[in-house]
Amino acid sequence: MQLILHQTMQTIGDFETIFKDLEKAFTTNSKGPTLHLFPELYLTGYPLQDLCLQRPFIDRYLSLIEKIDAWSKKLKQAQDIGLIGGLHYEFDQNGLPLNIENVIYKLVPGQKLECLYTKRLLPNYDIFDEKKYFTSVNRPQIHTLFDKRIGVMICEDMWSSTTHNEDPTEDLIKQISQSGPVEAIINISASPFFVGKHEKRIARAKEISHLCKAPFYYVNRIGGEDEILFDGQSFAVNGDEVLDQAKRFIPQDLTVPLPIYQSSKKVESNKKDNTWESLFSPSFESGKKGKTNMRTFSEAELAEMLEGLCFGFQQYAQKCGFSKFTIALSGGIDSALVLTIARLSLGENQTIEAVYMPGLFSAGLSYDLSSELCKNLGVRLYSLPIKFFHSSIKNAFTSSFGQDMQGLADENIQSRLRGALIYARSNQIGSMVINTSNKSEIAVGYSTQYGDSVGAISMLGDLYKTEVYQLSQYINKRYNNLLPVALIERAPTAELRENQKDQDSLPPYEELDCILEGILCYRLNLEQIVELGFKREIVEKVYRLYKNSEYKRRQFCPIIKVKSKSFGFGYRVPITHKY
Amino acid sequence: MQLILHQTMQTIGDFETIFKDLEKAFTTNSKGPTLHLFPELYLTGYPLQDLCLQRPFIDRYLSLIEKIDAWSKKLKQAQDIGLIGGLHYEFDQNGLPLNIENVIYKLVPGQKLECLYTKRLLPNYDIFDEKKYFTSVNRPQIHTLFDKRIGVMICEDMWSSTTHNEDPTEDLIKQISQSGPVEAIINISASPFFVGKHEKRIARAKEISHLCKAPFYYVNRIGGEDEILFDGQSFAVNGDEVLDQAKRFIPQDLTVPLPIYQSSKKVESNKKDNTWESLFSPSFESGKKGKTNMRTFSEAELAEMLEGLCFGFQQYAQKCGFSKFTIALSGGIDSALVLTIARLSLGENQTIEAVYMPGLFSAGLSYDLSSELCKNLGVRLYSLPIKFFHSSIKNAFTSSFGQDMQGLADENIQSRLRGALIYARSNQIGSMVINTSNKSEIAVGYSTQYGDSVGAISMLGDLYKTEVYQLSQYINKRYNNLLPVALIERAPTAELRENQKDQDSLPPYEELDCILEGILCYRLNLEQIVELGFKREIVEKVYRLYKNSEYKRRQFCPIIKVKSKSFGFGYRVPITHKY
Repeated sequence: MQLILHQTMQTIGDFETIFKDLEKAFTTNSKGPTLHLFPELYLTGYPLQDLCLQRPFIDRYLSLIEKIDAWSKKLKQAQDIGLIGGLHYEFDQNGLPLNIENVIYKLVPGQKLECLYTKRLLPNYDIFDEKKYFTSVNRPQIHTLFDKRIGVMICEDMWSSTTHNEDPTEDLIKQISQSGPVEAIINISASPFFVGKHEKRIARAKEISHLCKAPFYYVNRIGGEDEILFDGQSFAVNGDEVLDQAKRFIPQDLTVPLPIYQSSKKVESNKKDNTWESLFSPSFESGKKGKTNMRTFSEAELAEMLEGLCFGFQQYAQKCGFSKFTIALSGGIDSALVLTIARLSLGENQTIEAVYMPGLFSAGLSYDLSSELCKNLGVRLYSLPIKFFHSSIKNAFTSSFGQDMQGLADENIQSRLRGALIYARSNQIGSMVINTSNKSEIAVGYSTQYGDSVGAISMLGDLYKTEVYQLSQYINKRYNNLLPVALIERAPTAELRENQKDQDSLPPYEELDCILEGILCYRLNLEQIVELGFKREIVEKVYRLYKNSEYKRRQFCPIIKVKSKSFGFGYRVPITHKY
Repeated sequence: MQLILHQTMQTIGDFETIFKDLEKAFTTNSKGPTLHLFPELYLTGYPLQDLCLQRPFIDRYLSLIEKIDAWSKKLKQAQDIGLIGGLHYEFDQNGLPLNIENVIYKLVPGQKLECLYTKRLLPNYDIFDEKKYFTSVNRPQIHTLFDKRIGVMICEDMWSSTTHNEDPTEDLIKQISQSGPVEAIINISASPFFVGKHEKRIARAKEISHLCKAPFYYVNRIGGEDEILFDGQSFAVNGDEVLDQAKRFIPQDLTVPLPIYQSSKKVESNKKDNTWESLFSPSFESGKKGKTNMRTFSEAELAEMLEGLCFGFQQYAQKCGFSKFTIALSGGIDSALVLTIARLSLGENQTIEAVYMPGLFSAGLSYDLSSELCKNLGVRLYSLPIKFFHSSIKNAFTSSFGQDMQGLADENIQSRLRGALIYARSNQIGSMVINTSNKSEIAVGYSTQYGDSVGAISMLGDLYKTEVYQLSQYINKRYNNLLPVALIERAPTAELRENQKDQDSLPPYEELDCILEGILCYRLNLEQIVELGFKREIVEKVYRLYKNSEYKRRQFCPIIKVKSKSFGFGYRVPITHKY
């Protein structure tokens, strides 16, 4: 017997493709008995959120199930069995969903889909809301397929921790000790990506392989669902040995053998892997003289991050049907990096352009650097000065309101004019505008709502400014200084007033980012952050800025998620509250 | 013994006020033994979302608990007992929250707070995410206070239905039959408002009063938490008799007696009250010739809606610290109604202004009607034409991009210019911009992102266009034609191109709104909507428009919620998916 890990990529609700890919797997000639593994919720896509409650979606899904059953009846591949993630609905007398289970269906040619197992641990923290939609049911964990006893799990089931009251892994070990050995453990997953997560999966899989004394098979989906990425990286391990491993962010069918487990290594079950604490600990490291710094990413991690950003951006763009992209270049590092990453990700038939919109306070250097960057990237740069619009609006304000436009109003109107103009250009050619904000700015509200914060998708919204620099330097090393060095070395400025510098309003980014990470991981109070080596008044100022900018984040676009704790779907706090 | 229902209004996390109000209740002279009832989560506010996981919030909350305990020790009001909603935390060895319970604390002067009861039914549908944060625990439901046996519940506990696996009301009835009668049933709530909800609460309370053979006391909080309103309307019933009832949207201490239950009426437990179906059924009624129409609200319901909108708007404004407001008037019904409601809600020291920004395609009538409205309301109207900015941007586009600005780009730039300008004005005087979109527009994406869709809070985002008309007519009846009649009777238009009318792109609003309601309630598929009397191609077009505008809704501001199913926090679907 062999196994095929179908690391699939489908759009949520694209039932036609979902059917075709299933069909293809079962009609390709396989060599002897083959167990096909498809990811968690393969038949629907994930995460569905309220879609799984909406009648039009449910109806289309039920049609797929009928279609599969009808097709299976005629199938003659007697040597193939499929284990496929899907939803199992139970309706009330009015046809409304009463219970929805996240299940493994068994597909045996000639027979209807059979519900084999229901996910027991429903993650319900951060981006996960599974208890909102799904019901957990205890069904047998060990099944006999091709005369082999096989233990099954769905995603979170392998990650029991203090956040759950049950432990399917321990239950499985107990059953094995009572009813005899199994020959394989299978986990079908839809496991969201963040940098460094794959190593945790492999480590835990090896542990379970040892504990259950059987090889462990893990199949994960591929996809970018708005902000959430699924990286695949499906694998099989046997004890400490990695039998094989699929690539990240690429659909792939990985054929893997079924060896016998032979190790005599003893391991103890480690419940610390997926605790709340391990998931959302701040990303710090101790620097010189005991000072706390943001963790420096390794080159491998930066490569992973870059791939994730390219993939996430492309998924969103393609699913939204865009092949043209427009970016507003300011002459600063953020927009330059966004343009560079988007350019690196570009496929055939896709085009990208940059627009530089200088105002009264834009330095000549901003244009020169933007121009140099665009030359390096082979991107056309348009120039659309806003000075004239800015001054005519100022005049009109004086005459309409009898009051001169000054201060914040005068700063923000420049940014909002740019927002309106970049979207006019986007409407003119049917392109998608990519947002250029970073996580530090988003966290303290250092941006103009409807101005520089506009965009369909945020490329860097999960990267602090210091991480923007890390990634820029990595790209320059890997791609021979694509980004002008002077651009990286320049002091950050919004150029909305004379001689403005970010550091006039904000603490140095090295400090700001650490303080923000301390706040956003949820695990530290202000006292503890001060103890990391920061001035109390600065910590309090950052906390205040963070709290007061929630209203801006509420209207922000989806942010491609590459870290464990991000703004967006997994981050939910009230706008109005006292602190 | 008497009871006082403390229908309180506090900002989330405003622990100082929370303490003061508690102190005040216990130091006011009471006449004999008094049971003070405070709403669910009185000690923290609700809904907290991730706040209850954030260490800075937790620390401040724990300080409050310590402060209350210290204060209680010195208290000598031996005739007072408090039942107070709060959170009970259990931490792990690292001081991280392991379990959080939504509880009733008992406060007896001289003693520390005692955790009496934990909420059993944690609502987890629509806007509710309680299983994400809270753990349900079974604690005794009957307690002896002042030598009287009293049954206790928290909010949802009285609403068991098919969405829950337990039924605390039935459990209570069972206990009463086993261990003897109780003299009162108490429910402390934080129950969100929607038009018509109060009648459901009263009906269910009477039912429980009969079933448990005891008077039923219900205390609910007051507040506007971003989009969610709490209306109070605390009450006491004894069988079919309403003993007393507090006002809606106003803090109030309601003193109520403890009579003996004497009815001999027999009722059966009705589990249909709070089912998924009853909560989110579409708001239809059959019109003439079997045609389906949107339900017509009664005057009492429209009064309730108007109060809710005024209250929700004022809460948001006050909590955000704004006392000045700016509204962009277009000459259409939506912005006119928003201005009118905001004006009606205005308190002392608050000011409001309107800005009219005519473009190339604005009719003279639009100005006349805006001007008449502002005269009626006593609001200053500014005029800031955009024609010149519009044409200079068009010229600049031709020269910068070598391409004329036409079609969608030319339409949207006008709307986005208005968005930028209204925010410039808001920055100039420190005012809050109120959004003027309605639910029909939001549902089909008939608005310009960063244009007419801007704003801090949406007043009408939960009202379909036909409901906007209903409310306008109600206001005109009640307030002597505040809104110019010609404005109500005018055909809706965005005035972004020559002779543009909404009905050129959209079906008539009477049809559109019914189709949308059918879609958004989740309970109907397209076939069922067609069967209500609509053309299939129109239903499909509306569904497509709805699906394709999710990205706009994602960046929309909070919408004051006045109906059972609204866009916003309780509505979560992916932007990218196939349908």
